[in-house]
Amino acid sequence: MSQHRISESTRGVYIISPTPFTEDGKVDLASTDTLLDFYDAKGVTGITILGVLGEAGKLTPEEAAIFLDHVMKRVDGTKPIVVGASNPGTDNLVRFANRAMEKGAAGLMIAPLPGLKTDEQIYAYWQAVLTRLGPDIPVCYQDYPQTTQVVTSVSVLNRLIDDFPNFVMLKHEEGSGLSKISRLRERSDAGKGRRISILVGNGGLYLPQELRRGVDGAMTGFAYPEMLVGVCDKFFAGEVEAAEDLFDIYLPILRHEQQLGFGLAVRKEILRRRGAIACSATRHPGPKMTARDHQELDELMARLDAKLGK
Amino acid sequence: MSQHRISESTRGVYIISPTPFTEDGKVDLASTDTLLDFYDAKGVTGITILGVLGEAGKLTPEEAAIFLDHVMKRVDGTKPIVVGASNPGTDNLVRFANRAMEKGAAGLMIAPLPGLKTDEQIYAYWQAVLTRLGPDIPVCYQDYPQTTQVVTSVSVLNRLIDDFPNFVMLKHEEGSGLSKISRLRERSDAGKGRRISILVGNGGLYLPQELRRGVDGAMTGFAYPEMLVGVCDKFFAGEVEAAEDLFDIYLPILRHEQQLGFGLAVRKEILRRRGAIACSATRHPGPKMTARDHQELDELMARLDAKLGK
Amino acid sequence: MSQHRISESTRGVYIISPTPFTEDGKVDLASTDTLLDFYDAKGVTGITILGVLGEAGKLTPEEAAIFLDHVMKRVDGTKPIVVGASNPGTDNLVRFANRAMEKGAAGLMIAPLPGLKTDEQIYAYWQAVLTRLGPDIPVCYQDYPQTTQVVTSVSVLNRLIDDFPNFVMLKHEEGSGLSKISRLRERSDAGKGRRISILVGNGGLYLPQELRRGVDGAMTGFAYPEMLVGVCDKFFAGEVEAAEDLFDIYLPILRHEQQLGFGLAVRKEILRRRGAIACSATRHPGPKMTARDHQELDELMARLDAKLGK
Amino acid sequence: MSQHRISESTRGVYIISPTPFTEDGKVDLASTDTLLDFYDAKGVTGITILGVLGEAGKLTPEEAAIFLDHVMKRVDGTKPIVVGASNPGTDNLVRFANRAMEKGAAGLMIAPLPGLKTDEQIYAYWQAVLTRLGPDIPVCYQDYPQTTQVVTSVSVLNRLIDDFPNFVMLKHEEGSGLSKISRLRERSDAGKGRRISILVGNGGLYLPQELRRGVDGAMTGFAYPEMLVGVCDKFFAGEVEAAEDLFDIYLPILRHEQQLGFGLAVRKEILRRRGAIACSATRHPGPKMTARDHQELDELMARLDAKLGK
Repeated sequence: MSQHRISESTRGVYIISPTPFTEDGKVDLASTDTLLDFYDAKGVTGITILGVLGEAGKLTPEEAAIFLDHVMKRVDGTKPIVVGASNPGTDNLVRFANRAMEKGAAGLMIAPLPGLKTDEQIYAYWQAVLTRLGPDIPVCYQDYPQTTQVVTSVSVLNRLIDDFPNFVMLKHEEGSGLSKISRLRERSDAGKGRRISILVGNGGLYLPQELRRGVDGAMTGFAYPEMLVGVCDKFFAGEVEAAEDLFDIYLPILRHEQQLGFGLAVRKEILRRRGAIACSATRHPGPKMTARDHQELDELMARLDAKLGK
Repeated sequence: MSQHRISESTRGVYIISPTPFTEDGKVDLASTDTLLDFYDAKGVTGITILGVLGEAGKLTPEEAAIFLDHVMKRVDGTKPIVVGASNPGTDNLVRFANRAMEKGAAGLMIAPLPGLKTDEQIYAYWQAVLTRLGPDIPVCYQDYPQTTQVVTSVSVLNRLIDDFPNFVMLKHEEGSGLSKISRLRERSDAGKGRRISILVGNGGLYLPQELRRGVDGAMTGFAYPEMLVGVCDKFFAGEVEAAEDLFDIYLPILRHEQQLGFGLAVRKEILRRRGAIACSATRHPGPKMTARDHQELDELMARLDAKLGK
Repeated sequence: MSQHRISESTRGVYIISPTPFTEDGKVDLASTDTLLDFYDAKGVTGITILGVLGEAGKLTPEEAAIFLDHVMKRVDGTKPIVVGASNPGTDNLVRFANRAMEKGAAGLMIAPLPGLKTDEQIYAYWQAVLTRLGPDIPVCYQDYPQTTQVVTSVSVLNRLIDDFPNFVMLKHEEGSGLSKISRLRERSDAGKGRRISILVGNGGLYLPQELRRGVDGAMTGFAYPEMLVGVCDKFFAGEVEAAEDLFDIYLPILRHEQQLGFGLAVRKEILRRRGAIACSATRHPGPKMTARDHQELDELMARLDAKLGK
Repeated sequence: MSQHRISESTRGVYIISPTPFTEDGKVDLASTDTLLDFYDAKGVTGITILGVLGEAGKLTPEEAAIFLDHVMKRVDGTKPIVVGASNPGTDNLVRFANRAMEKGAAGLMIAPLPGLKTDEQIYAYWQAVLTRLGPDIPVCYQDYPQTTQVVTSVSVLNRLIDDFPNFVMLKHEEGSGLSKISRLRERSDAGKGRRISILVGNGGLYLPQELRRGVDGAMTGFAYPEMLVGVCDKFFAGEVEAAEDLFDIYLPILRHEQQLGFGLAVRKEILRRRGAIACSATRHPGPKMTARDHQELDELMARLDAKLGK
């Protein structure tokens, strides 16, 4: 299984998976199977479960454990599975993390706790978490201030890169400018520090620009994973403009899906319409689509199909 | 047991209890017993467990269940126990709430979810929660924007008072001015709406002023509960100035304990020094006291003892 | 001049203008002229000055007055000029607003003050501002929680629509879902309240979807105003899909320009490259582009030109 | 005048002054005179004007200039006057700062701009401001995250202490725990860096504890400055417990006045009742006291008078 662990050299598309629910709000394991098959058919490199998009905070621990087990069994070593492990308590985080790794997880996705402010506070939090997880558990740092309000400086990232070999991946989704990527890459290119894997989030909203700056792929939940895969493949094959062209076709619906909060409902609904899951319900409190929202999505999906010649 | 349920006419001091841990971080049931005895000896009316002060978010569900069971058995119907039930997922909230009520809880303390902004959003959240809990489960609304960032208007509270008979208590701890209390009381005094119980939080920092404005007591975690009890007793006996005099003696240490975040460590340490618990550790991430912080507390406790003639 | 006042029936594109500076940081009136000519050539309906994009908070009052006078004289009644008037003090807001109207402004753009939370607080603020401005000064409500943190409910907007005839326009740029537009339009369509003008912000990121939901145009600072104009023109001519097609061509660079904070530097730099202003400097504190950022913009602009057949 | 400049060795009480207004909202220069006399009679070391308490953001630049000139002339070199100079634009900040220094100010009080997050961002902001002000203008860093949301680490403060000799004073009012003071003092005591002046804010809520940790006095707006002066005098004379005793007498009203936002109205009203100013009005938007709030203040002031044997 260890060949499946995420590492500094991980490249490709790790799709972030929602947790499918039935109409009456239960975790839907049948839809989990079809969703995993869907992702497989679209060519993703790996799958990330139990993140914000997976509504992890609204599952019971038993549900999370059952879902995790089910996914691990279904995938059965054919693909790396990254598991979201953010938790307000570090004991709980470590316990769940160890359990996920025992089940065969490829690594963990963890976001810093809301409320951390200074560089010192952020570093100290990660120092505790990464130390307690130990050097053998690879971690992806979810750098997403839009929901955590935690803004991580390049300097903190560099300290963590230098001090903790298990910090192997950054999920880059800070929203203003892409220079964080360039600064990280310039340092490792200059031999001044370890080069880690950087995958991009934010639905992939800036994917081509981020690839040009040196990222290794995407870890995000866009409901058309084949675009993410296609763009990365073309880019890594040197077909940069073709990668951009493909991206542009999907951008109108991507930017629609990317609306904060509301986007989760849209994403699940697209997956439902595409046959990946049976029901697009989210758990309370969660966004719901109105009839007008559905009509809007009809129009956007129809335009995408037309562009794709469908 | 139902004579113990909180209601619109609840009056007195509900002390908010921390969760004691052993030096190696386990829930300390022996200290739980001594702590409950301590509270009993100080004359509190009831006890609130598993709130923010109780580090509920850092317990496993199993630990929370064990702690709840242990407290219920130890108290054995002699005092009402209010149980914190805030949760990012409403299904989880309702499930835990029902379990707590089955175990004999007197009611629930619930804070609105971070991220709610407009009156409409806040009302809709409570509408869902209060409806799903049903009319038989009494709820205390923790109105604490300092941690939730949710600011609840008097108008939303009034709508909830009118629409949901199970909204029986407000834990008032919005920090700027006390007119919210007066506005709520003026309405019910004028016969325009139901009068609910209002207990104050914030460590009791404004307790005498809040009593003068018509609150029914306190629900907070000050480590000298005898002060809260004494002030309320004197006030309700008409000895208003004597109530203020008693309050003033404790105010220097109260305002020290009231520091946001850091205060939890101080509070547990005072309880330890007073013999109520064996260890003042908090779980990670949580505040820690330095040697200098301990010295500061020595000085403040010594001054209090001197004033009390000890 | 009053034919130029904004009103409930205003329709079209009001471009939000930056304030051009010289290399040494002075307000650049020569570039102001070329910029106004540029906007005129692109066919905008009106121009909005001294907003956030105009770095109004970093001008001296004298500079703001000189810039305002200069713009009014240059435009000379050929186009309506909306003036940003947000201010921490209401006296200052009203004084500046009156001065702007005397100079011939078409109306004011005002955002609610940061720190307002509840519906009651937000309504009370606007009640004071709209009352003090008086019924003859038309106001555009900048509804932009991404910078103000103030989230305005549909219910507050409806109360303001009913109570203040000078509230004539909403600049819609709340970021999550577009149902606010639909709810406002459904009410006025049902004859339950006044129909006001709604122009969209956010760089136009959702312009086609917002037009389909009933907005009247855009008030935003996208550096290719001809796209905004073209999309609105086509849409209002009934060529909905053609409007979307045109929009999609510009979307990659639009979403790049839309990055919070950083976007101001990109926008000014595009305007410089297009010959509209001489220098793209922003005042401190403000974003700056690195060499790598410039290269990224080269690539995006080249791709746009290629799509446009240039 | 330069003997009056604030410096690393400044000690004592710098009272923060409100800006008095007349009933019709004008700056009240007659009340400014009586207020300055009041502060003088209470024995303050210096006076700080045009801060948040001074409603600086709601004055016109002309009003601020007139008020500054008036204060400087009235005080006429008998006391150091620190001038608030925070500004969203650095050009404006520097221009106003230079003007204030030319008029004889003892130094500037500046808070970091809201929106700064990482250590790097905060340092870079101050680097720009302190460089542009130049080494001859002494600056007090207002470290007040309760309003700015900017949390400054000890590490950033130390870098600024090392790099900028004009950073001579810290106004300490970060609210959670006092270890920042101890860490700064430990470093300079160990000879590892310059010792700067630290004055405390927050109304003086933790003044005795902060003095014990090594601060040099207070810079805050408590409406009974004689307490701040008396506590500091006693403390520096070695009468530590007497200093605490004096503090405790005023603590009930201090903690009342310290309520965020609302406190400004209380403070001005106490000053009015004490004869220091003629009118307690604040400018819109600003807090107002209800009849019930006035009654509450009556009670608190009566209790204070009783304790003082008045």
